[in-house]
Amino acid sequence: MGTVPLLTDAEADPAARAEFDDIRAKRGTDYVNNFWRALAHDPALLAATWERVQAVMAPGALDPLVKELVYVAVSTANGCGYCVHSHTAAAKAKGMTPAMHGELLAVIAMAAQTNALATALGVEIDERFKA
Amino acid sequence: MGTVPLLTDAEADPAARAEFDDIRAKRGTDYVNNFWRALAHDPALLAATWERVQAVMAPGALDPLVKELVYVAVSTANGCGYCVHSHTAAAKAKGMTPAMHGELLAVIAMAAQTNALATALGVEIDERFKA
Amino acid sequence: MGTVPLLTDAEADPAARAEFDDIRAKRGTDYVNNFWRALAHDPALLAATWERVQAVMAPGALDPLVKELVYVAVSTANGCGYCVHSHTAAAKAKGMTPAMHGELLAVIAMAAQTNALATALGVEIDERFKA
Amino acid sequence: MGTVPLLTDAEADPAARAEFDDIRAKRGTDYVNNFWRALAHDPALLAATWERVQAVMAPGALDPLVKELVYVAVSTANGCGYCVHSHTAAAKAKGMTPAMHGELLAVIAMAAQTNALATALGVEIDERFKA
Amino acid sequence: MGTVPLLTDAEADPAARAEFDDIRAKRGTDYVNNFWRALAHDPALLAATWERVQAVMAPGALDPLVKELVYVAVSTANGCGYCVHSHTAAAKAKGMTPAMHGELLAVIAMAAQTNALATALGVEIDERFKA
Amino acid sequence: MGTVPLLTDAEADPAARAEFDDIRAKRGTDYVNNFWRALAHDPALLAATWERVQAVMAPGALDPLVKELVYVAVSTANGCGYCVHSHTAAAKAKGMTPAMHGELLAVIAMAAQTNALATALGVEIDERFKA
Repeated sequence: MGTVPLLTDAEADPAARAEFDDIRAKRGTDYVNNFWRALAHDPALLAATWERVQAVMAPGALDPLVKELVYVAVSTANGCGYCVHSHTAAAKAKGMTPAMHGELLAVIAMAAQTNALATALGVEIDERFKA
Repeated sequence: MGTVPLLTDAEADPAARAEFDDIRAKRGTDYVNNFWRALAHDPALLAATWERVQAVMAPGALDPLVKELVYVAVSTANGCGYCVHSHTAAAKAKGMTPAMHGELLAVIAMAAQTNALATALGVEIDERFKA
Repeated sequence: MGTVPLLTDAEADPAARAEFDDIRAKRGTDYVNNFWRALAHDPALLAATWERVQAVMAPGALDPLVKELVYVAVSTANGCGYCVHSHTAAAKAKGMTPAMHGELLAVIAMAAQTNALATALGVEIDERFKA
Repeated sequence: MGTVPLLTDAEADPAARAEFDDIRAKRGTDYVNNFWRALAHDPALLAATWERVQAVMAPGALDPLVKELVYVAVSTANGCGYCVHSHTAAAKAKGMTPAMHGELLAVIAMAAQTNALATALGVEIDERFKA
Repeated sequence: MGTVPLLTDAEADPAARAEFDDIRAKRGTDYVNNFWRALAHDPALLAATWERVQAVMAPGALDPLVKELVYVAVSTANGCGYCVHSHTAAAKAKGMTPAMHGELLAVIAMAAQTNALATALGVEIDERFKA
Repeated sequence: MGTVPLLTDAEADPAARAEFDDIRAKRGTDYVNNFWRALAHDPALLAATWERVQAVMAPGALDPLVKELVYVAVSTANGCGYCVHSHTAAAKAKGMTPAMHGELLAVIAMAAQTNALATALGVEIDERFKA
């Protein structure tokens, strides 16, 4: 299915397999999810994406769970079903409770609604909101 | 500008003006931003939106600042310039530091990128990501 | 401004000018709006677009005003400020009252909200909704 | 499937079950569609959404069928497959004929096309389109 | 499935069947893909869409393969799974190699990322980028 | 304007200024456009973005001009006005003629239109389009 087949370890090029191994080691699991198996057709793109995901999602000024919530929000607005599923699972793994999930959905829905209203009304940006 | 004029207090219908007053009281400021002045053409829609925003953005299982970060993320993915500006300002007012802002942008950009990759690859959802 | 200059009648190629004249005649106004002046850089694309707009927006099983409301809705969801402005103006010219405008906005906002919820929840399509 | 399981009546919390009953009563059917069963994980969000949908979709200055057409249009532009299916079914139930469906699709497609052209050309909004 | 059934040759109206035959003849294949079978419910919309696709995708100042790459890019950004699949297949048929596919994905992902950054930062357009 | 001020060379941190200098050197121009000046608030994000843009947009299996056309297409579909302007300018600088621009717009508009139709019809992906 998909526009490229998902590559097994045996089918993947050694450079891609090395990334699979790194994903397994860093995540402490044997499971490599479909996104990486699809990206493995282009080992350089796989490596660049995996490296950048690690840097961006690491703890910093924002908590890793907060970053996952933001990821789910963007994925929802972009209509990416795969990403919504994988990052909702990641958020649960990092501690998102059902109550947090419910509030996240409510904020996403609220924003979608006021985004539409502001666009349909063509509202000009208030001077005080400009940096 | 916009598709409707922004209503001043004098121009707004009493029902809309009552909402303006409530916004002022709840936010502790005299300033009513353009979004509400545009919505004031439909006092019922203004009231329903303002009431729901308060319920959704109140402290709960998620912190109000986290909710603003999610709001900025959705507004960015939906391409709503007004909303990006107003909620970035709100996030700053609730304590978003420049370092947090930088990390928020990095996560939004990361998500936008992997959303596009997952969609272009037509990646099937892993069974383990389904609830 | 824009990515191409807006062409005046004098600057436009005769094929584009003929389309401008047809727009004026069919709409009963001397004014040719910016969209057509930008498209005039490619007279074939201008002609194909203008011809198709007329066919699609003509009265049929749906009323021309209903078609404009749908146009505003799509333009809002796609975040096209130009299109939101031009088709809101067209809808007003075809009889959209302030009350209708308010209800249109409320439906657009409602749909945006439930679209986000259905996507974030990954809701499967009910068998009975499939044709 | 989905990011949360669909709750049966037996699994749903009494507050959610009361909403299911209200949906059944107001719609005159025993069937509660998947969207509400997914939302039932957060009874307060379910109640707020159902209440607002009823208010917004009720007859008013716009006909309920026109509101469904607008809903389908927004759902299409937002790429929400679930919503396109459920509101196309609702529109048919409210009287959308095949000819109306065909014209609706043609308007949505026309708008999508000119939205893209206006954005790619960066067309400035004509003064006369500003309120 | 879908919001309309896919029409077989026997079910399609003669006007739609004539379009199916034209698609077969022009493409040198007996296979008519699902998109056209769904559109066949409105023969006029089917005819207008098929005619326009041929004109737009024909060789011209841009190579047909380049046009398919652009088509895949737009379909990805719009989150249209059907279109991503059909145009990725078309691009492969017109000579897209795995290396070209990989680079296409990398550009699409890069653009999605900087689109999000520019929107979240509210960057003003440089004077030199305006025509 | 924007959600952050654009940093001049004097205001930017030395790490960001080093990126500005690299942009100038690699592009053979003194001009650093607004996108980079906005990103300069987070020198690490600026560096990561600039480094990745260079890798992705370099000549490879696809020509640099083709990559710019794809970039314009994605930016249009995402509704990013800044990106549409900057990459249309870049495409012109790399040799996009008015005829190529016209055809690019026609393909983008065609894709937007059939994306909407495929989504509204809920067309199932043909088996032969799956890899």
